[in-house]
Amino acid sequence: MNESAIIAARDKDKNINNKHIDRAYYKVLVGDEKKDRNSISLEDREITAYHEAGHALIAKKVNKNNRVTKVSIIPSTKGMGGFSLNIPKDKMYQTKMDIINNIKIALAGGRAAEEIIFGKDNITTGASSDLQKATEMVLALLGSYGMDEEVGLINYDIILNSNLNIDISLMERARKILDDFYKDTIEILVENKIYLERIAEALLEKENLKENEIDKIFIA
Amino acid sequence: MNESAIIAARDKDKNINNKHIDRAYYKVLVGDEKKDRNSISLEDREITAYHEAGHALIAKKVNKNNRVTKVSIIPSTKGMGGFSLNIPKDKMYQTKMDIINNIKIALAGGRAAEEIIFGKDNITTGASSDLQKATEMVLALLGSYGMDEEVGLINYDIILNSNLNIDISLMERARKILDDFYKDTIEILVENKIYLERIAEALLEKENLKENEIDKIFIA
Amino acid sequence: MNESAIIAARDKDKNINNKHIDRAYYKVLVGDEKKDRNSISLEDREITAYHEAGHALIAKKVNKNNRVTKVSIIPSTKGMGGFSLNIPKDKMYQTKMDIINNIKIALAGGRAAEEIIFGKDNITTGASSDLQKATEMVLALLGSYGMDEEVGLINYDIILNSNLNIDISLMERARKILDDFYKDTIEILVENKIYLERIAEALLEKENLKENEIDKIFIA
Amino acid sequence: MNESAIIAARDKDKNINNKHIDRAYYKVLVGDEKKDRNSISLEDREITAYHEAGHALIAKKVNKNNRVTKVSIIPSTKGMGGFSLNIPKDKMYQTKMDIINNIKIALAGGRAAEEIIFGKDNITTGASSDLQKATEMVLALLGSYGMDEEVGLINYDIILNSNLNIDISLMERARKILDDFYKDTIEILVENKIYLERIAEALLEKENLKENEIDKIFIA
Amino acid sequence: MNESAIIAARDKDKNINNKHIDRAYYKVLVGDEKKDRNSISLEDREITAYHEAGHALIAKKVNKNNRVTKVSIIPSTKGMGGFSLNIPKDKMYQTKMDIINNIKIALAGGRAAEEIIFGKDNITTGASSDLQKATEMVLALLGSYGMDEEVGLINYDIILNSNLNIDISLMERARKILDDFYKDTIEILVENKIYLERIAEALLEKENLKENEIDKIFIA
Amino acid sequence: MNESAIIAARDKDKNINNKHIDRAYYKVLVGDEKKDRNSISLEDREITAYHEAGHALIAKKVNKNNRVTKVSIIPSTKGMGGFSLNIPKDKMYQTKMDIINNIKIALAGGRAAEEIIFGKDNITTGASSDLQKATEMVLALLGSYGMDEEVGLINYDIILNSNLNIDISLMERARKILDDFYKDTIEILVENKIYLERIAEALLEKENLKENEIDKIFIA
Repeated sequence: MNESAIIAARDKDKNINNKHIDRAYYKVLVGDEKKDRNSISLEDREITAYHEAGHALIAKKVNKNNRVTKVSIIPSTKGMGGFSLNIPKDKMYQTKMDIINNIKIALAGGRAAEEIIFGKDNITTGASSDLQKATEMVLALLGSYGMDEEVGLINYDIILNSNLNIDISLMERARKILDDFYKDTIEILVENKIYLERIAEALLEKENLKENEIDKIFIA
Repeated sequence: MNESAIIAARDKDKNINNKHIDRAYYKVLVGDEKKDRNSISLEDREITAYHEAGHALIAKKVNKNNRVTKVSIIPSTKGMGGFSLNIPKDKMYQTKMDIINNIKIALAGGRAAEEIIFGKDNITTGASSDLQKATEMVLALLGSYGMDEEVGLINYDIILNSNLNIDISLMERARKILDDFYKDTIEILVENKIYLERIAEALLEKENLKENEIDKIFIA
Repeated sequence: MNESAIIAARDKDKNINNKHIDRAYYKVLVGDEKKDRNSISLEDREITAYHEAGHALIAKKVNKNNRVTKVSIIPSTKGMGGFSLNIPKDKMYQTKMDIINNIKIALAGGRAAEEIIFGKDNITTGASSDLQKATEMVLALLGSYGMDEEVGLINYDIILNSNLNIDISLMERARKILDDFYKDTIEILVENKIYLERIAEALLEKENLKENEIDKIFIA
Repeated sequence: MNESAIIAARDKDKNINNKHIDRAYYKVLVGDEKKDRNSISLEDREITAYHEAGHALIAKKVNKNNRVTKVSIIPSTKGMGGFSLNIPKDKMYQTKMDIINNIKIALAGGRAAEEIIFGKDNITTGASSDLQKATEMVLALLGSYGMDEEVGLINYDIILNSNLNIDISLMERARKILDDFYKDTIEILVENKIYLERIAEALLEKENLKENEIDKIFIA
Repeated sequence: MNESAIIAARDKDKNINNKHIDRAYYKVLVGDEKKDRNSISLEDREITAYHEAGHALIAKKVNKNNRVTKVSIIPSTKGMGGFSLNIPKDKMYQTKMDIINNIKIALAGGRAAEEIIFGKDNITTGASSDLQKATEMVLALLGSYGMDEEVGLINYDIILNSNLNIDISLMERARKILDDFYKDTIEILVENKIYLERIAEALLEKENLKENEIDKIFIA
Repeated sequence: MNESAIIAARDKDKNINNKHIDRAYYKVLVGDEKKDRNSISLEDREITAYHEAGHALIAKKVNKNNRVTKVSIIPSTKGMGGFSLNIPKDKMYQTKMDIINNIKIALAGGRAAEEIIFGKDNITTGASSDLQKATEMVLALLGSYGMDEEVGLINYDIILNSNLNIDISLMERARKILDDFYKDTIEILVENKIYLERIAEALLEKENLKENEIDKIFIA
């Protein structure tokens, strides 16, 4: 409740209300909202909107049980241009399918949505941290969890600790998998372009979308 | 007896009884039992049950002399989802066959049982430490114990200490061997699927199985 | 205003005028102007003039929205032989096209203009920091931003942090891309040689060109 | 005489006798004898007996001048399962043949005897330090002493100190040589299996064999 | 003037004359002259003379504007066997041709003159620092200045800082270029052998040659 | 004179005579003579004699100007088995031929003489420091002095300092050169076997040979 109290104090409200608690919750996850947003160009806002809409759309499409609780295009003081929150189910193990879906969610917003909406030449640097996450996940899939039949069951952390050489087939495979998943993601986005645009447009209008607002878009 | 005394004290029993001693014995091996288990989903409990049942089944099948003294799906405070204890015979040397069997036991639970029961897409991250152990064992088999005719008798610890390059054939061989052993393990599990399911079901019901309970399943 | 005050003081002027503010602005960006310029040979001045004219020309030609606010052939005390300032639009993301254009701007002055005007044997060491910048940008394009279809979406920073080997295809691709962009740049310069010469001649006459003077050259 | 005095004191003997001196001599070489040997299984004792008999037999067969002064299957407190002592002639230089013979002696017990007597699947981890020694010796033969015509006269210590790359042919050659020597060793053991068994049986009966007892076996 | 004063003092001259100033000038550049030169054999003096004559000759032949201000075969206390001073024009940039010429000047004395005069078997270790300089220059030409069309525009300093692998084509190219330049140098020396011999003979007679003495040799 | 005085004092001689000075001279070069030589076997003495005779013979045969001032088979306290001193001419430069000859001198004693006299299987570890020296010299010939036409003029010290990869052709070439020189050396030894034996026999008889004694053997 501490963060809520601080936010209430800053807003010069005497009582902590639901809005304060809500903002405190997201503040912990993604940082404070950036106050001065006048300098952000329409172009930048559109890029962010389609980027985050892409994450949200793929999250909903790859697994019906995924919950997207909030999407926002308000830049945070932590340096994020916006965010799309999908809360994973609390469980002890991740399946191969869970990891594959998460890779696709990461690839979709950062790059696939940009490519579809703005064209191949206008893909942006906004995807770089998404690509880092996707690369980390695909390396874990192949090298730590032994989940790829071509690469096999060897654990590469042990191999690297033994100072043994690793041939480049691991990276070649990671490259191929990311490319394949990217194509899957593009396909999902193209098939659901109508939703991608609706989420992005809603975001450009309202800056924030809550879970029920997002879910309504898919039902409509 | 010290650990038993502490456990008795915590249970507010005046006397140390057999249950206390038994729990103290396993506590040293795998850690204390996690008390609050309400948050664990049925799905997670099933994964753990088949995972541990797989370890136990392969342990019994690869070598008749192996004793599985306890199987449990109670998560420990040490972070384990469950455990299957097979006490090896106290001896000075391990044979090549011992090491091969241990690799198969490691591969079986963590991955092979999951694949057979839940399908290839639903293999989980729960196998990662098993794969680390299997990788370490296969590297020792090849590189420290010179037990593979294809790789030969060279000791790779010496080679690595001499800063000499090692070609990638060692890793290729390790990869191949793990894949072959994995196929063997899958075969054993498929042939004995009835036992795998019986152990898992018993575990889901009772959470713990003692040696005589496990042995009864195979006789029945 | 502090830098302007210092410059006014040094010029023994009582009041800070526009000239003082203007010089303070560029001083922060590129350093103080070198006072003693008698020792600079005509040959060196010509190389600098065509070098900077090349940067300015390509900046204007690759993107109509680029603003070149100043070009100068006065060496700075920071060690630069001259400079061409193109202020990029203030925006959150760089597109693939932005990065490609910046690589071409870097390649053009430093090398392409020299080759066209002075011949292949007389290209100079003046381009070395331009080539560093171009190499850094092409590596980011390929390895951090995943913007090249041939190289794919893998993030090489993650790969390098994982101590995994990288084959040389990344560098081969970077080499090829730089060569292609260089050819594009040469083509633009050849087509617009008349402007290249006009900017260079104006620079040799006046040492400095302001935005409106540069823009006039293209209109004329 | 100091060690003998300590051993005499521990045995509560007033005088230092020959038995004390003899035990002190071997204690310095291989460590104190492990007192409690009840826990050692017959299987482990047999493995040790054939292992050490293999070392002793090859030592006598590769060079008639080799003296095997003691063979033992009593584990030492230094962690050895047993030992076979062959005292080399005191000389300034080792010949190529000396090194080859020592490699064969190392390979024989640790692995070749096990393979012949217990079968390929039952070779044990007991050979690991023998394989380390054999690998070190073959690397010295090739890389430090330039004794292999195929590898040539280059000194690899110098090459490695110069940070120059070494191709993998050195290791390939080491691998091949160890395999060839192993085959030679197997052949010697097979031809002399009767002696191998006699030494092992004598060891299982007496735990220790002195030089004259070993020599008698070969004469008989 | 400080160095001249010290030199005058050491010579026990009351006044600083032109000879003192001249010696002070070269002392700063190449170090003090070695006083005791009796131990130097005629053979060593001849090697030095042709070595330095080679540097001087190539310097004059590759570019008419090069000024060779002094050649000497007096060993310096800084460890040089002699020196040939060619003062480069004071300019901001070096062209590709400048660097090529400097590589040829470095290769010529140290190795090419020796080969022509004394034969291939009698080339000496005197060229080692010249070869270091030539190797550094060719690496800069290829890797820092992007001046070779085959290697392209990539900056290798950036590549190496990124921990990316570099294939061996860079070194192959450097090797080829040095060999080609060496052949060019040999050709120039063979065509001008008469001047090479005249400079060397003059050096053996006088130990030092001034700019006008060197220029006279070419005119004669 | 200090060392001579110490040696005289140790010998309990009142005056320093020629013998003292002579021993002091060699002591500085190769260390003190080992006093107790009874434990050295005839076999070891023969190996040393032919080893040092080989060095001396090749030194005289590759270059008539080489002076072998002393050969000895008395082990020094510095750990040498013996020595053969050939004082090189005092000169500023070493020619390619000088270095080749020194490599051959190093290869000859340590290995070639052993092979010819004792057979290929009886080559000894006594050659290891000779092979180190020969490897260092051939690497300098190729990589520092650019004296091999196949490897070319590149300076490998610069290449290694630049963190550039070196392909393995340098080592292949070094290997080939050492093998070729070894064959040359064997040939010289075979042609002059009579002298090799005479020097070795004289050494076995007298332990030390002075320059005039060595020279007499060749004249006889």
